[in-house]
Amino acid sequence: MAEYIESLQRLSEKFGVLQGVGRKSAMRMAYSVLELSDEEAHEFAEAIIEAKQKIHLCPICQNLTDRELCSVCVNPQRDRSLICVVEDVKAVLSIEKVREFRGVYHVLHGVISPVNGITPDKIKVKELLARIDEGEVKEIVVATNPTVEGEATAMYLSKLIKPLGVKVTRLAYGVPVGADLEYADEVTLYRALEGRSDF
Amino acid sequence: MAEYIESLQRLSEKFGVLQGVGRKSAMRMAYSVLELSDEEAHEFAEAIIEAKQKIHLCPICQNLTDRELCSVCVNPQRDRSLICVVEDVKAVLSIEKVREFRGVYHVLHGVISPVNGITPDKIKVKELLARIDEGEVKEIVVATNPTVEGEATAMYLSKLIKPLGVKVTRLAYGVPVGADLEYADEVTLYRALEGRSDF
Repeated sequence: MAEYIESLQRLSEKFGVLQGVGRKSAMRMAYSVLELSDEEAHEFAEAIIEAKQKIHLCPICQNLTDRELCSVCVNPQRDRSLICVVEDVKAVLSIEKVREFRGVYHVLHGVISPVNGITPDKIKVKELLARIDEGEVKEIVVATNPTVEGEATAMYLSKLIKPLGVKVTRLAYGVPVGADLEYADEVTLYRALEGRSDF
Repeated sequence: MAEYIESLQRLSEKFGVLQGVGRKSAMRMAYSVLELSDEEAHEFAEAIIEAKQKIHLCPICQNLTDRELCSVCVNPQRDRSLICVVEDVKAVLSIEKVREFRGVYHVLHGVISPVNGITPDKIKVKELLARIDEGEVKEIVVATNPTVEGEATAMYLSKLIKPLGVKVTRLAYGVPVGADLEYADEVTLYRALEGRSDF
């Protein structure tokens, strides 16, 4: 290689640590930083520090926030008796975009995956139980991803929560709206048939 | 949207400024920063500042370096009478990988593009002329990209430098080694025919 520039290499490695950033993209981004003005580079560095400092988990629902409570938990119009349990903060954004759900959330920050050493105590399950314990909760909608781990987590939560006298529901499975049946996998089609409804 | 977290948005915008990073990737990276430890985040921020501070252009060839001169210009084994002119620093790395070129480089940091307001004085042309002026240079290999702007820049340089009594050459055009002719475009094939050689 022509020139091994240590500080460029180090910066590239930092980018490479981020989720979904490969080695080539990381290097391209590091080069790109060199094209920023000194001021822009400083602002970038500060934005990293600031985001880390200001953003924390909402103590109620475990979603990310830079205030005391997140905007959903602080909103008096949201129904506290209905909690939608999701795997991560991105799922909250996806569901909020629908502008249909009027309950509150609970972010697990992961799914149970014994293979990867993620047991229920590694995700925010006890925080969910604590909320149920307060007595206001009537229904838990489990909205974990339709993956093996997501399913297992949903099952685990259902078995844990139902005995507490709280209704536990699951997002409907089926073919995605607008998609061609040709491209739907067999399991999805099976679930769509199983869950068919009358016209 | 669920939650507009100002510091997360700001960080995402900083990532978005980097070359080849779209809005969604930028947001994913910003989320990813939140998953770093405080120490990692600080190191990331410092790496940005350090790269900007330490890395500058080699005063001779305009390549990036964190030392006084770049590793090519400082190497006594390189032939100073042969300069390969490239558009950007990535081209230097590409050519060095071949381990064949024994001359030195000159990085233009751009190509002439009147449409985008890039005139010859906006790229490192006068620095190249200054090097030629010192009298040691015998040949300039123009290795700008085979694009319209790259071609125009090569043509411009050739017209400018030939009268100074310096040989000006161009990288060969042709079909890429290992590629199927079926996928070669017409212009490349035309150039490959035009530049055909005896067995």
